[in-house]
Amino acid sequence: MSEFTHFDAEGNAVMVDVSEKETTERIAVAKGSVVMQPETLELIAEGSVKKGDVLTVAQLAGIMGAKRTADLIPLCHPLMLTSVKLELSLDTARSAVDVTARCKVSGQTGVEMEALTAVSVACLTVYDMCKAVDRGMRITEVRLLHKSGGKSGIYEGI
Amino acid sequence: MSEFTHFDAEGNAVMVDVSEKETTERIAVAKGSVVMQPETLELIAEGSVKKGDVLTVAQLAGIMGAKRTADLIPLCHPLMLTSVKLELSLDTARSAVDVTARCKVSGQTGVEMEALTAVSVACLTVYDMCKAVDRGMRITEVRLLHKSGGKSGIYEGI
Amino acid sequence: MSEFTHFDAEGNAVMVDVSEKETTERIAVAKGSVVMQPETLELIAEGSVKKGDVLTVAQLAGIMGAKRTADLIPLCHPLMLTSVKLELSLDTARSAVDVTARCKVSGQTGVEMEALTAVSVACLTVYDMCKAVDRGMRITEVRLLHKSGGKSGIYEGI
Amino acid sequence: MSEFTHFDAEGNAVMVDVSEKETTERIAVAKGSVVMQPETLELIAEGSVKKGDVLTVAQLAGIMGAKRTADLIPLCHPLMLTSVKLELSLDTARSAVDVTARCKVSGQTGVEMEALTAVSVACLTVYDMCKAVDRGMRITEVRLLHKSGGKSGIYEGI
Amino acid sequence: MSEFTHFDAEGNAVMVDVSEKETTERIAVAKGSVVMQPETLELIAEGSVKKGDVLTVAQLAGIMGAKRTADLIPLCHPLMLTSVKLELSLDTARSAVDVTARCKVSGQTGVEMEALTAVSVACLTVYDMCKAVDRGMRITEVRLLHKSGGKSGIYEGI
Amino acid sequence: MSEFTHFDAEGNAVMVDVSEKETTERIAVAKGSVVMQPETLELIAEGSVKKGDVLTVAQLAGIMGAKRTADLIPLCHPLMLTSVKLELSLDTARSAVDVTARCKVSGQTGVEMEALTAVSVACLTVYDMCKAVDRGMRITEVRLLHKSGGKSGIYEGI
Repeated sequence: MSEFTHFDAEGNAVMVDVSEKETTERIAVAKGSVVMQPETLELIAEGSVKKGDVLTVAQLAGIMGAKRTADLIPLCHPLMLTSVKLELSLDTARSAVDVTARCKVSGQTGVEMEALTAVSVACLTVYDMCKAVDRGMRITEVRLLHKSGGKSGIYEGI
Repeated sequence: MSEFTHFDAEGNAVMVDVSEKETTERIAVAKGSVVMQPETLELIAEGSVKKGDVLTVAQLAGIMGAKRTADLIPLCHPLMLTSVKLELSLDTARSAVDVTARCKVSGQTGVEMEALTAVSVACLTVYDMCKAVDRGMRITEVRLLHKSGGKSGIYEGI
Repeated sequence: MSEFTHFDAEGNAVMVDVSEKETTERIAVAKGSVVMQPETLELIAEGSVKKGDVLTVAQLAGIMGAKRTADLIPLCHPLMLTSVKLELSLDTARSAVDVTARCKVSGQTGVEMEALTAVSVACLTVYDMCKAVDRGMRITEVRLLHKSGGKSGIYEGI
Repeated sequence: MSEFTHFDAEGNAVMVDVSEKETTERIAVAKGSVVMQPETLELIAEGSVKKGDVLTVAQLAGIMGAKRTADLIPLCHPLMLTSVKLELSLDTARSAVDVTARCKVSGQTGVEMEALTAVSVACLTVYDMCKAVDRGMRITEVRLLHKSGGKSGIYEGI
Repeated sequence: MSEFTHFDAEGNAVMVDVSEKETTERIAVAKGSVVMQPETLELIAEGSVKKGDVLTVAQLAGIMGAKRTADLIPLCHPLMLTSVKLELSLDTARSAVDVTARCKVSGQTGVEMEALTAVSVACLTVYDMCKAVDRGMRITEVRLLHKSGGKSGIYEGI
Repeated sequence: MSEFTHFDAEGNAVMVDVSEKETTERIAVAKGSVVMQPETLELIAEGSVKKGDVLTVAQLAGIMGAKRTADLIPLCHPLMLTSVKLELSLDTARSAVDVTARCKVSGQTGVEMEALTAVSVACLTVYDMCKAVDRGMRITEVRLLHKSGGKSGIYEGI
């Protein structure tokens, strides 16, 4: 197993030098869920047929959150996302809102943190909008599903 | 079960009017984990005895993230946090980094979103710093542990 | 007519000292419009019955924009909004989207800039989302409709 | 008339994928006005011969506002402006401050939103600085005057 | 000599809990200088009689910078400044631009970091605007001149 | 001596048009110090062997500050840093914390402001963390040490 790249030889945190990396199209897909009471999920489902529902607000928050990644994560590089797409869906069996984010950039570093941040912010927004009726919700299984475009090759998660 | 408060009668998203709420001291505690390969956890543990380790960076990111909550979550009120504290610890049995955030404010609205955002940003930062050695990490069980100070009384989660 | 308050005796721009002002509940309402081709308005109207329409995105952008006012307007005071509400409606006669924003704070300075910024950001977002079909849209008549709570009394615009 | 590009087939808002677009030099010019009482315009005119006048503050606010566009407009792409220029002038006949912004980028997407945001923020700043003497000012006719560099060709507004 | 307050007993960085502190009017004054070539100072002096000079831009940047303090300094509390004032003057004897910032708040924690940040950002802006003609400028002697309003009493620096 | 580039012929502040400049790898190194009481330096030195010490917090603040440069300095271009590295060391002879920042970009404009901003924010953070024990600290000698990559050639400071 290799070493952490975010520290130099003396143990100082650094924003890794990516200037020698190739500029390629990089894609990352992340996923996560908010698990909740069935009654809460039902309220969201009812709202989804109306204007201004929970899922729309969370989706926009996720897109905007992706753009704030370098502000939030100390050692992330600023980068110019060329595409951000979020999908939110309801899984009644697991009583969960599932969030998938897909980010793309043409750059020297990957966009997995942007995709994971988009998912996290969308999940937090679902929590915010439903917390008045359900404080026990959990944001869970936020993970990387796919990554391509860097020299480490393609990664597929589950 | 009550209704969502973040929509008005026509279904428009609103930043809820809290001007009639009492100004009280409000506290929220949130918790979450990053589950990873045992080898990754070991690398973090080794780093923790040196300057600039993963946990310190994540802890600071969480504190700063708490201050960005109203920028990230569309319908959150801006507020003046009087205290933010994060604790990160390693659980080798579950091969996880556990993050706990505690936020305090004297205000008209609660700080659960600030605590949950702090936990999420700290977890994302752990992911960012370890992703070169472990892409399969999962941010999981981000939830509210405690809330007090509002008219809805004390909430204790698990 | 009185003098500008944003300059001191030497002509330097200053963030006006409001520390002697009374803390009162202050409300401001602002309004503005995006005038467009009738065909564009029709496309918005059609979208309004679906999830994720133009008006919902613009409304959220306006709420979030209100919270960024002190970041954007150099001499504005930071303040803790207790309520932000935006309403967007379509006026087919004038072929316009009308935006109304209402902001509230308990503080030492008014919220008219927050209301005007919310309207402007919502209007810009309408432009952004429709610009692929109509580049000639105009943001127009952004103005203050109502202001109350300060020592200057109630203002009613038209 | 074509369709909105900011929604996918299911009606979800997306940050449009521009990764296949050509990188070209893109320019946009936007214009807008703040209409006010003649006495207010006169006060601005008097200040313009002194240090720290209204127009200088508004001009800087506009330049800085252009850089915040992707933070404010939910579906805007982040981009690296290579030039921002604002001009403010007084039109006594219409009793108006006129603001023109010109933005340039070498990128895969246009800069009309940056130019329109720069104009809007400069106009809001004029309002802020003069509101103590004139609450009835109106921000009006914010529109695109010129756009070039994309595959849709040159646009000239009025 | 007392201990650092920004670490807890285990050495974790914390945003200090100020919830038990008294709400009082707190004032801080900071000062700093940019030392440069006499020719550079002369160019600034010439510009000062025209619109849009170096000092005006730096002054506004300092005011806006004060408002960003809690975003920049990890353990600073967000607070609502009630007044920010910057003065810039030229000292030909020392070939320096001197910057003084005065901040005020009614709150539970002091504003010395806001005043120091305002001075630093104004000095950096002077550097930015003059760097094409003088790369050897130095930002120097940024320090606290005055602090009052907290339980530690009045501090006067030199 | 040449003219300021940040003003146009009419004296308006502008974000300089860099669209004709070559895209090259540009590097800048800046340095600065916080001078303090010997007892304060000793406290920092003791903390440096523990987790979460002053230097680590300041170093991270500096890296994050570099990314906020275009938000803070009015006429700075936004750019995509490919590397940021900060080193902090203690000089007991001068009773000072020395901060060195090195920034890199592949772009059309230099990164000296990013390096100088990183140093300033790190120095301000040192001040913030030690101010409870030493209010008389001074941030001093913030300057450019090295710049390369632009058409003006290599600059070496002292």
